[in-house]
Amino acid sequence: MERKRSGRRPGRPDTRQQILAAAREVFAAEGYERSSIRRIATAAEVDPALIHHYFGTKDKLFLEAVEAPFDPKTVIPDVFGPGITNVGERLVRTFIGVWDSPNGTRAEAFLRSAVNHPLMSKLVEQFILNHIIKNALTNLDVEIDHISVRGSLIASQLLGLAMARYLVKLSAICELDAETLAKIYGPTIQRYLEMDLTELHLPPRE
Amino acid sequence: MERKRSGRRPGRPDTRQQILAAAREVFAAEGYERSSIRRIATAAEVDPALIHHYFGTKDKLFLEAVEAPFDPKTVIPDVFGPGITNVGERLVRTFIGVWDSPNGTRAEAFLRSAVNHPLMSKLVEQFILNHIIKNALTNLDVEIDHISVRGSLIASQLLGLAMARYLVKLSAICELDAETLAKIYGPTIQRYLEMDLTELHLPPRE
Repeated sequence: MERKRSGRRPGRPDTRQQILAAAREVFAAEGYERSSIRRIATAAEVDPALIHHYFGTKDKLFLEAVEAPFDPKTVIPDVFGPGITNVGERLVRTFIGVWDSPNGTRAEAFLRSAVNHPLMSKLVEQFILNHIIKNALTNLDVEIDHISVRGSLIASQLLGLAMARYLVKLSAICELDAETLAKIYGPTIQRYLEMDLTELHLPPRE
Repeated sequence: MERKRSGRRPGRPDTRQQILAAAREVFAAEGYERSSIRRIATAAEVDPALIHHYFGTKDKLFLEAVEAPFDPKTVIPDVFGPGITNVGERLVRTFIGVWDSPNGTRAEAFLRSAVNHPLMSKLVEQFILNHIIKNALTNLDVEIDHISVRGSLIASQLLGLAMARYLVKLSAICELDAETLAKIYGPTIQRYLEMDLTELHLPPRE
């Protein structure tokens, strides 16, 4: 294999792949929070220092392991920083922006692999919960209850939008521009974030 | 292959498969409306009478060709017959009902194949537009503009719900019961069906 000229630190490809494979297994089995670099190093049969050397933090290792289409930290402040008003519209605009950018191909591969591989499904769930939702809510100016439920509802509409526009390619959705989609889907996202959930008999609050 | 004891008329499996493969190609290329049994017969190199004999109507042939998880005609009257009030909630309840039934496995295969095969994506679009939406709207008591846009928006939320609950399996969504999901997603569907689209610069009305 040719060595790619990317920003990644070089390393023997098989060691990198070995670490990424071990990381996927450990993250999927233990969850993001409980997984440690040390644990992943044991599973990959390498020294923890090597993982730090190749990948930096646990966060960065996770993003590489799941082949995340983007680093949520680079877009979340713009979406959630300005506060809860119109956050739905901003989220849709940014989401479409990622998919319509060169990263769209990566996003498509990410979604396909979530559909086809149970292990990746688990990692995608952790990506959504730990990397997007929690990051997002710490940037918000209000406290939100039932974070996992609301975050998952929002994810369900965004997953569906991505399915409709980029995978199944429903022509009526493909023909709409980002601004129109933001006006249509924004209020849905906003409602999932703000609607009163107290009268729905939800499982005990996490 | 063993002959299955199903309600299907028997026939040489290769002829049936040959017809179904030709049907998929023709439906995907021409669209449901413009595809005829005669055209499919030519593509499959069989007599049109044989297709009628094996599959009955074009509608039934289509449902078998796309491996539809259910026949929309069997559920649509219950959802749309009572009128536009609360149609969103009824649709979500019925949708979850299909997925939680033994047909759920078929629905899952259907969705996976839509994600993985461009030809199936086209057929799924036709299934949604021609078999679900149009059937649905003829059962409604009011006239609806921008049918394809509204139908596709609704499909996008239902696709996302199916993704979240049955494919990616986001645990917060899996834990909610059908009634709670109907209360949450119903108003989204209802809004996509009834919201004023005149101020969004949509492509010319179909």
